[in-house]
Amino acid sequence: MIHQDTPAARLARIATASTTCEGVTRLPWTGEHRAALGQITEWMEDAGLQVTLDAAGTLCGRSPNPGGKPVLMIGSHQDSVPSGGAFDGIMGVALGCLAAKALRDDLAGFPFAIEVLAFADEEGVRFPTALIGPRALAGTLDPVALEMRDGTGQRMRDAMTAFGVEPAGIGALGRDPASVAGYLEAHIEQGPVLERHDLPVAAVSAICGIARHEVTIRGETGHAGTVPMAGRRDALVAAARVIAAISEAAEGQGELRATVGTLSLRPGAVNAIPSEVRFTLEVRAPEDALREVFEGDALARAATICRAAGCGLTATRTYVQPAAACDPGLTGALETAIRDSGHAPLTIPSGATHDASAMADLCPIAMLFVRCRGGISHRPDEFASDADMEVAVRVLAGAIRRLAQDKGRAAGAPTDGRG
Amino acid sequence: MIHQDTPAARLARIATASTTCEGVTRLPWTGEHRAALGQITEWMEDAGLQVTLDAAGTLCGRSPNPGGKPVLMIGSHQDSVPSGGAFDGIMGVALGCLAAKALRDDLAGFPFAIEVLAFADEEGVRFPTALIGPRALAGTLDPVALEMRDGTGQRMRDAMTAFGVEPAGIGALGRDPASVAGYLEAHIEQGPVLERHDLPVAAVSAICGIARHEVTIRGETGHAGTVPMAGRRDALVAAARVIAAISEAAEGQGELRATVGTLSLRPGAVNAIPSEVRFTLEVRAPEDALREVFEGDALARAATICRAAGCGLTATRTYVQPAAACDPGLTGALETAIRDSGHAPLTIPSGATHDASAMADLCPIAMLFVRCRGGISHRPDEFASDADMEVAVRVLAGAIRRLAQDKGRAAGAPTDGRG
Repeated sequence: MIHQDTPAARLARIATASTTCEGVTRLPWTGEHRAALGQITEWMEDAGLQVTLDAAGTLCGRSPNPGGKPVLMIGSHQDSVPSGGAFDGIMGVALGCLAAKALRDDLAGFPFAIEVLAFADEEGVRFPTALIGPRALAGTLDPVALEMRDGTGQRMRDAMTAFGVEPAGIGALGRDPASVAGYLEAHIEQGPVLERHDLPVAAVSAICGIARHEVTIRGETGHAGTVPMAGRRDALVAAARVIAAISEAAEGQGELRATVGTLSLRPGAVNAIPSEVRFTLEVRAPEDALREVFEGDALARAATICRAAGCGLTATRTYVQPAAACDPGLTGALETAIRDSGHAPLTIPSGATHDASAMADLCPIAMLFVRCRGGISHRPDEFASDADMEVAVRVLAGAIRRLAQDKGRAAGAPTDGRG
Repeated sequence: MIHQDTPAARLARIATASTTCEGVTRLPWTGEHRAALGQITEWMEDAGLQVTLDAAGTLCGRSPNPGGKPVLMIGSHQDSVPSGGAFDGIMGVALGCLAAKALRDDLAGFPFAIEVLAFADEEGVRFPTALIGPRALAGTLDPVALEMRDGTGQRMRDAMTAFGVEPAGIGALGRDPASVAGYLEAHIEQGPVLERHDLPVAAVSAICGIARHEVTIRGETGHAGTVPMAGRRDALVAAARVIAAISEAAEGQGELRATVGTLSLRPGAVNAIPSEVRFTLEVRAPEDALREVFEGDALARAATICRAAGCGLTATRTYVQPAAACDPGLTGALETAIRDSGHAPLTIPSGATHDASAMADLCPIAMLFVRCRGGISHRPDEFASDADMEVAVRVLAGAIRRLAQDKGRAAGAPTDGRG
């Protein structure tokens, strides 16, 4: 029998408040967001935290901090994609509150206070922007984001005001880096690696950087019956060779990932040689240098393949986001806590972006991945087990105790840390 | 200075009557069709032919044939694709009339009469059927074709009746094979081979058979950042390997052509691994056995490639049309006439389907290709030069004289053939 207050029970209740006919839909600045904040407030108060909502819509639960110690933050996002799951984002808030609750009686002796954060919008599906909560804390938010409009034409600034936060206050949210000891985030893995290793959790080495290219290959159309194979300038055959070559090259590059996710062609008739193929190429890697060398090599090889096929190639880099390395000290504390929990301390890169990506501009970051069934996320059948989430709570709390001990020792002050 | 009655002058005038803002649009059973029949009637009468419109909408120009000799037919189609060119189809009618005119004074001594045919609908772009004229003559027309509807919902039967032909008479159009000496068709090549060989005309060895397949490759989607390259079941990578392999295999198969002309994928997002790719594969070859072996090998290799990529493949053959070999006697006469005209007698397969494909069910066929600029057809800039078309008229007339001579000699009767 599952106890009423397990992570699973909490997530089931908060999901129910945001459940459409299919899965969870909890977009920022909506009634579902409001309902979630009500429940998260209860979780925070249950952990002895003092709750406020900041001007960027981030719900902050702070442990008592009369001496003004630096704060160690634990957070993630409250929002989901449309028809998403009950774990992505919100799980990190729930586990953060439970870890804070587990540490509640010892926090006074730690060399830092605790702050649990529930960011409003990480998925970026309502407005064409995201991460405003962590960017506000890091002082990196471009105010133009507030003028973005959603599908109904409403500006984010107006949606926020209607929700009850005052965007004019965002400028004052930036934290002094000296006041922040670090940021920890627990998140479902959204990939199959933990399942393959049969492990409940893993530390994260880095959040991969991302580059996106729009590639166009131009050849020449012609009648599929009358133009001999020799001398064809078939844009799809050239694109096929390029896509196969990129996939093959990426397989030898360790943690790098290269994906062609969209492709369209012209003229697009059963009996016409394709004259033009457009596709997207996305490359992710935990180290920017590795990614950039791969991008250059892949596009150069693509150009060579196209030339040999009598086709032309143009590629435009449409997006780039650098990698964010996780802090070795914070990550080491997580690894030790994983070992202490009786599991092998696997450390893997994150292929997906998280709130931690933006927090990296403010302070040291670290992340803890929780196994999710089939590597599935952003779907109603997204699932992490209660047992794995309980491990994650113990690991978070254990790592924070370890950090308190280490920092206290480094500062020469005794702590209550139990290691 | 170009004479008023060159092939080019004729085609320019008939194109003007069917010209939209872009190119030539002459669909069957329309005012443009009616206007073209008026001009073709003049061409036929100018060649001394007696003109009738049959129940399938074929305009027939017959040389006087009091003795009931077998007829040698020369034809092609009057219709164009929308925004097409001034040569595809109609050129064969114009050149047939000019050849008949060149032979006019000698026909009485030939062992066959001449019939020039202008078929109503070869392109099949208005109704989802085509070739009703030659199929009516061959007795192979499926009456269900008459019930097909165009984009406005009009049945072909009603369009024909409104045009002034009586579809009920189609059943009586079938010819006795013994009454037909053969069918010759001149057509633009619609490909680049004559231009590459710097030749004005070529004889055709066979009209390629066609098979079309719809291929679906199924893998598994996933986050482009979180799923490692190893273990991906990327349907697009599998499809790329398949398309490259098919193209490579086809290049070693002589006159065979294999084309992937359409491709779509799902889910189709820059950061999602493709789970499903659908594409069409069209294979054409002058020999059915060659094509069928290639199809089997290509699909077997595709299945092997997909299995290795962790993907599944299904393929459905959606269309098949057997090859039609050209008659060696008729083709030999064209080759001799080409040599007599001072050009090398190149003989190539036709990758495209023509009225001759359907006439092959009735009688021996042969075709004469005329060089077209850039191999381009079905476009406003489709072009064949007057000089090349004049060569084609001389070759057609020369070949018919040769046939008259040969058939006359075979029958033991003297002819007027000048060889």
